[in-house]
Amino acid sequence: MTIIKTVFVTGGAGYIGSHCVLSLLDAGYDVVAIDNFANSVGQKQAASLDRVQKITGKEITFYKCDLLDIQQLDEIFTKHKFDCVIHFAAMKSVGESMKQPLLYYKNNIIGAMNLLEVMASHKCYRLVFSSSCTVYGNPTFLPISEDHPIGNVTNVYGRTKYFIEDILKDVVNSDQKWNIISLRYFNPVGAHSSGLIGEDPTTNFSNLMPYIAQVALGKKASLSIYGGDYATPDGTGIRDYIHVMDLAEGHVAALKKLQSNHLHLQVYNLGSGQGTSVLELLQTFEKVTGVKIPYTIEARREGDIVSMYANCDLAKNDLGWRANYTLEDMCKDFWKWHTMNPNGYKTNDPANTNGTIDNH
Amino acid sequence: MTIIKTVFVTGGAGYIGSHCVLSLLDAGYDVVAIDNFANSVGQKQAASLDRVQKITGKEITFYKCDLLDIQQLDEIFTKHKFDCVIHFAAMKSVGESMKQPLLYYKNNIIGAMNLLEVMASHKCYRLVFSSSCTVYGNPTFLPISEDHPIGNVTNVYGRTKYFIEDILKDVVNSDQKWNIISLRYFNPVGAHSSGLIGEDPTTNFSNLMPYIAQVALGKKASLSIYGGDYATPDGTGIRDYIHVMDLAEGHVAALKKLQSNHLHLQVYNLGSGQGTSVLELLQTFEKVTGVKIPYTIEARREGDIVSMYANCDLAKNDLGWRANYTLEDMCKDFWKWHTMNPNGYKTNDPANTNGTIDNH
Repeated sequence: MTIIKTVFVTGGAGYIGSHCVLSLLDAGYDVVAIDNFANSVGQKQAASLDRVQKITGKEITFYKCDLLDIQQLDEIFTKHKFDCVIHFAAMKSVGESMKQPLLYYKNNIIGAMNLLEVMASHKCYRLVFSSSCTVYGNPTFLPISEDHPIGNVTNVYGRTKYFIEDILKDVVNSDQKWNIISLRYFNPVGAHSSGLIGEDPTTNFSNLMPYIAQVALGKKASLSIYGGDYATPDGTGIRDYIHVMDLAEGHVAALKKLQSNHLHLQVYNLGSGQGTSVLELLQTFEKVTGVKIPYTIEARREGDIVSMYANCDLAKNDLGWRANYTLEDMCKDFWKWHTMNPNGYKTNDPANTNGTIDNH
Repeated sequence: MTIIKTVFVTGGAGYIGSHCVLSLLDAGYDVVAIDNFANSVGQKQAASLDRVQKITGKEITFYKCDLLDIQQLDEIFTKHKFDCVIHFAAMKSVGESMKQPLLYYKNNIIGAMNLLEVMASHKCYRLVFSSSCTVYGNPTFLPISEDHPIGNVTNVYGRTKYFIEDILKDVVNSDQKWNIISLRYFNPVGAHSSGLIGEDPTTNFSNLMPYIAQVALGKKASLSIYGGDYATPDGTGIRDYIHVMDLAEGHVAALKKLQSNHLHLQVYNLGSGQGTSVLELLQTFEKVTGVKIPYTIEARREGDIVSMYANCDLAKNDLGWRANYTLEDMCKDFWKWHTMNPNGYKTNDPANTNGTIDNH
């Protein structure tokens, strides 16, 4: 098996992508990244990757490229030789996906298909795919292991991930050369401990942590918690929060696995394995930051899942990976990023970075 | 509600498409059809539609167009005003779909998405979609009604239909203007009674009836029946065969329904409601045609479904439609087409048709 040296990262400037690129560089890989900035309203250039270069002291080759532009994609694959691909690029707003399903299906599914097509034509068969716990739909048992049934997904965004997982199965089945790991992320939060990179605020606050940040920063008066009478210890919904740097390290572990094993297609949950309620998260955030978060309990939202957390034994046993950061770490690093960058990447670089990334 | 006058038919030159166009013309609709001839190796021009014009004495507007060419599609929608669309166009070989999954996902899913996008931009929201009983996967109860669970599809072709049904649900949910009927076909066989149009032989004989034709025409020595020890009355697999003209009339019934009702999205089975075993079909074919079909019983094929037939009460009650042709009719009309056109549309027109279709 060829050594994995150069990794192609789609969506590399995004929240999870940029943290993963950092971990890849730290682990000694060369990175070529692309992004179309669809989710990164604050970024005109790849500001996140510019900062990653500062943090690591290493260079990233970057292209502004949309996966729907299969010709440009092919040119990038012609110019470089990739030993593995990590595919983050996707539209990711659950709410928006329900309003514009065709846009989501088009971007996420055609994007993935174009990538697979170009990979095959350049004989690059190693892939790590960003999947999501949303493919499990409403859980029938907890904690959720990888053999939990998938489908019955409650939103379009999740359905695009589910469809792509099915497409990957068929692609692997049709050609045994493929070697693919699909990572099902639970709820990534937090930021790199430097405070220099993190989740760029967008206009969409359907996720809890960005919403909390808005209240903490005084941009919103109070937090709305949807459902306070669920059959959980404190009545609020339970999720499995995972520090984004743990998630990033999960990708490095996946690369190592792909280097020495021909798995065909293997799925791994990446979560903390801990269920945390909305109120627990809120209390931890308040304790760590000293900032009070006023909240109101609102009616349940239709389609919301009550409780969801991962069994991560398979990733532990197969990849030698486990989540190490605590909920306190997630809150602390998250808050550091937000206080240092109240306007995300539009904030002048707090580290006074004046290097610029090599934008091709 | 606007009257449905002009119908846009994708895949109009194909087996089911051409029979449906015939029924639409007979019912007084104007038809604009497209095809890319992907499944019709024998057709250089739209020979099938040329013959439909002869049979009906009516004109069809035809364009050679691939749904992946969204620009040409948009031009056609700009030139005409469509009151409804019937979407047949798809790649349909189960075996090929397993070998070339990306080709199938790309053609079938992107094709459908492009069509939906162009329809919406031209404010055409009425659609009849060609789905398939394969979306039910391995049945959990028989006869299969529309509320049978879908998913767990056993092949890529069927998965493209399943994904598109899911996409249609999300599209309808995002915009209430849509008015869509998805027709789940069981096993269409037979041909128009004129013998002038029928299923064009291709190199792919994974379906039973085309295989029988090959043996009957002396092109193959004997028929291989996969599995003779299933838990069925005679040990062979059971399917629900439906005459293609019954199927075509089902589309006319669907148009009438869409004209006077806003359904959002409604699914209907189109089948005969009768389960027929391979040996029963063979015996009926031999009885009707007087041609002997030698056969051998082979081992079961992995993934083959034992028994599958439809409950068609919903189409009967809602659409006032039911299958009228018998198994004898299917065999007789099928054999007439094949004897009159042993090489499909490559055969000189048996009716000595010399008109040519208006190819744009």
